[in-house]
Amino acid sequence: MVVHGGSGSPRRGADGELGRRQGLRAALEVGRALLLEGGTALDAVEQAVRRLESHPLFNAGRGSVLTSAGAVEMDASLMNGADRAAGAVCSVSRLEHPISAARLVMERSPHVLLSAEAAEAFALAEGAESVDPASLITPERREQLERARGKVGLDHDDEDEDDDDRGAATEGADRSEGPAEDVEYGTVGAVARDARGHLAAATSTGGLVGKLPGRVGDTPIPGAGTWADDATCAVSLTGHGESILRAAVAHEVDAQVRLRGVPLEKAASDALRRAKKLGGRGGLIAIDRQGRMATPVTTRALYRGWVEAEGEPVVKIFADE
Amino acid sequence: MVVHGGSGSPRRGADGELGRRQGLRAALEVGRALLLEGGTALDAVEQAVRRLESHPLFNAGRGSVLTSAGAVEMDASLMNGADRAAGAVCSVSRLEHPISAARLVMERSPHVLLSAEAAEAFALAEGAESVDPASLITPERREQLERARGKVGLDHDDEDEDDDDRGAATEGADRSEGPAEDVEYGTVGAVARDARGHLAAATSTGGLVGKLPGRVGDTPIPGAGTWADDATCAVSLTGHGESILRAAVAHEVDAQVRLRGVPLEKAASDALRRAKKLGGRGGLIAIDRQGRMATPVTTRALYRGWVEAEGEPVVKIFADE
Repeated sequence: MVVHGGSGSPRRGADGELGRRQGLRAALEVGRALLLEGGTALDAVEQAVRRLESHPLFNAGRGSVLTSAGAVEMDASLMNGADRAAGAVCSVSRLEHPISAARLVMERSPHVLLSAEAAEAFALAEGAESVDPASLITPERREQLERARGKVGLDHDDEDEDDDDRGAATEGADRSEGPAEDVEYGTVGAVARDARGHLAAATSTGGLVGKLPGRVGDTPIPGAGTWADDATCAVSLTGHGESILRAAVAHEVDAQVRLRGVPLEKAASDALRRAKKLGGRGGLIAIDRQGRMATPVTTRALYRGWVEAEGEPVVKIFADE
Repeated sequence: MVVHGGSGSPRRGADGELGRRQGLRAALEVGRALLLEGGTALDAVEQAVRRLESHPLFNAGRGSVLTSAGAVEMDASLMNGADRAAGAVCSVSRLEHPISAARLVMERSPHVLLSAEAAEAFALAEGAESVDPASLITPERREQLERARGKVGLDHDDEDEDDDDRGAATEGADRSEGPAEDVEYGTVGAVARDARGHLAAATSTGGLVGKLPGRVGDTPIPGAGTWADDATCAVSLTGHGESILRAAVAHEVDAQVRLRGVPLEKAASDALRRAKKLGGRGGLIAIDRQGRMATPVTTRALYRGWVEAEGEPVVKIFADE
């Protein structure tokens, strides 16, 4: 199982670094416990993401970034590799756990994606936990919005020439040293492979700081921010959502593996680079049917961690860590 | 240039068949005139789709199908092959031309996709034409909803074994002969190649009859219902949106062409079959960089037409036509 808590270019030793490491570790432990009890990959990724949504230091659920209007609007999706069933919600504010609302859409509606207030109404009627949107807002996010006013997201306008992935990660990191301070792309996600060999992926986010109301990024879109197919791999993205959508990154990883037999690590790096060519940085986590994993990144850091059936959780932040 | 007005299993000689043929022809003429004047592929697909949105017999704009709550909720997207710029809106009701709102998102926001009331507010502030949602509803759509109450969409539960595409089309057609009467998947779309060799795609829809409020299908999703890349092809889908999303059909066509060099016609058929394996029928139109086109379909009919720089528009409906 692999989880992520967003990508970006934080300063080393910045506030919250330790807290985020602990949050990733806790999410891994939730998922691993489920998997060891014989739970499904789908349950594991949902529960791990719920844990990250509850954690105020990650940009999803509680602690989501704010729109230009100062509100929380969240997106989430999950996909089950066994049958490629998918569920998603976008632009929701009144739900404690958007990822579980996405699962309700998958399992209790004939649809894949529901939007905005209608998505909230559906999920609440199906038993999702409601929340006062104001309680999702942390003081840090209010301050962040003040700093970001008039500027959507950060750090995705320094397009550079095509280069190899490791070079890209390092180079991107150096260039963005200046203004970057927070986690810019604070999506959370998880991918898992269970004892039966089934794969699943889940992704949840508050989106971009200062985004326009109603903006939907890659997170709730199967094929962009999330993908799972037992035949190939499970993928969860973080990064500049518009570029990820325009490069269909999650499905691109699947296509590279399925159509060309490219090894997961190269498929994941190449797919992420297609978003970078459009000016968008980020990172992804992926796991394939053999249980191999990949965590490529084109920002300085990808908050990430993994755990196998045996062994302790490993948590890393910086690309060179 | 190729346009479509949805897929489904209409009776031959059903009401509206002639009107739809005329509507497709009119859309082709709008697009061709623009292209002959040196207009871009992007302008041609937007204007052709606007024409189809205005036509009350197609399920997009005026004449959109109704949700389970009796309302119109529309989705639209377009994509420019020259730079893979994309714009989209979902779950909008107050816009006369959702496709032009999608273009405003692409050109005047930093985003790709905006949802629901916030999308309307953005588009109206940027000069989109507003409309009274009630005026988009036709009497035929009210009657259709009454017949469909309690049943979302039609005709996508008769999954059958994997078979070759032509066989699939015929077989699907026969099986759905019974209850099918209307155009089930009445999305409209256009793909074009302009004199400079640039490609573009646009898709617009009212969605599925009796869908849950807030439901978003493949239409506004780059990679699912719409794709354009000058390096490969431009694609616009119609059909069972949930399956198309879960198969990322538009991007699958691109991936087959780009990663494996599969000819467009086979790439398009194979991609559409991936949705059919998930239980979802439909059709697509595609054009590649050489100007070759493909119009595969897994229902009995795909309302479609095409025109080249020289020559008259051709319009067809039935798969065997």
